Amino acid sequence: MEDPVQRLVLALKRLPGVGEKNAVRIAFYLMQEAPAKGRELAEAVTGLVERSRPCALCGAPALEERCALCADPRRDASLLCVVEKFPDMLAIEKTGEFRGLYHVLGGALAPLDGVGPERLRLGALGERVAAGGVREVILATNPSTEGEATAAYVADMLATAGVAVTRIASGIPMGGELEYADRLTVSRALAGRREMGRP
Amino acid sequence: MEDPVQRLVLALKRLPGVGEKNAVRIAFYLMQEAPAKGRELAEAVTGLVERSRPCALCGAPALEERCALCADPRRDASLLCVVEKFPDMLAIEKTGEFRGLYHVLGGALAPLDGVGPERLRLGALGERVAAGGVREVILATNPSTEGEATAAYVADMLATAGVAVTRIASGIPMGGELEYADRLTVSRALAGRREMGRP
Repeated sequence: MEDPVQRLVLALKRLPGVGEKNAVRIAFYLMQEAPAKGRELAEAVTGLVERSRPCALCGAPALEERCALCADPRRDASLLCVVEKFPDMLAIEKTGEFRGLYHVLGGALAPLDGVGPERLRLGALGERVAAGGVREVILATNPSTEGEATAAYVADMLATAGVAVTRIASGIPMGGELEYADRLTVSRALAGRREMGRP
Repeated sequence: MEDPVQRLVLALKRLPGVGEKNAVRIAFYLMQEAPAKGRELAEAVTGLVERSRPCALCGAPALEERCALCADPRRDASLLCVVEKFPDMLAIEKTGEFRGLYHVLGGALAPLDGVGPERLRLGALGERVAAGGVREVILATNPSTEGEATAAYVADMLATAGVAVTRIASGIPMGGELEYADRLTVSRALAGRREMGRP
């Protein structure tokens, strides 16, 4: 039988930002000093996990049929930002500069790992675009091999859908230095240069 | 009087990629086992340093009046890539995708550190452009506060020079992930998105 302390420590360690030491400290704290807090935490986790489901539109975790963002009438529904996973959506939200809606694919194409198009929320994306009202689809998948392949696939899929399809920029990260950037990134930064002035 | 061992160790430590331990090891190696190699090294360093001077055109270290790159007739002289420092130029050369010439500014504008426009090779840049034959100036300064200010300054300086002025892309580095990118970089990646398909 599995050791319950070990089991909790393992579960805690899986949380982002929680290391082994911290996990052990939390586990003993809950066990010895605050069993009531432990029960409360367990119920809160269960409650959230059981109540949460993918938003019917974008696929992000939601407590209702539509997530708070998709249900917000102030967001610009003509702009659709396609991301691989929910944390990518959070990263874009944090900039505070995107006023459109999202579409969470649930990953990126990885044929070698058995992730084909049917495993991603691509059909749902096609339907959202076909339903009309979308002006631009921004492909914000990661600039990795899989993310690039996924972006190319979606661009191809939407080629005749009558919407603009754009790809976020790859290049030197802000505060980064050319000298220490990898070759491919420098190459992309050069290829993706933008006009600052014209003759 | 300065300790000669200490002095060599300090000088070695200043080289890129040489740490304290390595520097001490090299110093003792040269001292005890291979004084001839030490003399040879010293002469090679002196010989190179004394013979090298900034290229009259681009400002990169050169052994002749013009560096090997500026003297190469196969390079496209209509394309000028402006960088802060020589290692940035090497980073772009490593991509193997740039066939133009460079202009090394010698740094970036940093008014708080007393680096004003007169400290950079801006006059020489103006002269190269005014001499004609340049079609596009690519601003490849770093995406740091200083590098961005320098790019803006040069773009302004060349506004009426009759050449296209472009800026290399900032964005998510290749292989990087949106989830872990800083807010400003995500923001730039979004703002700098490029068309993949149109309605």
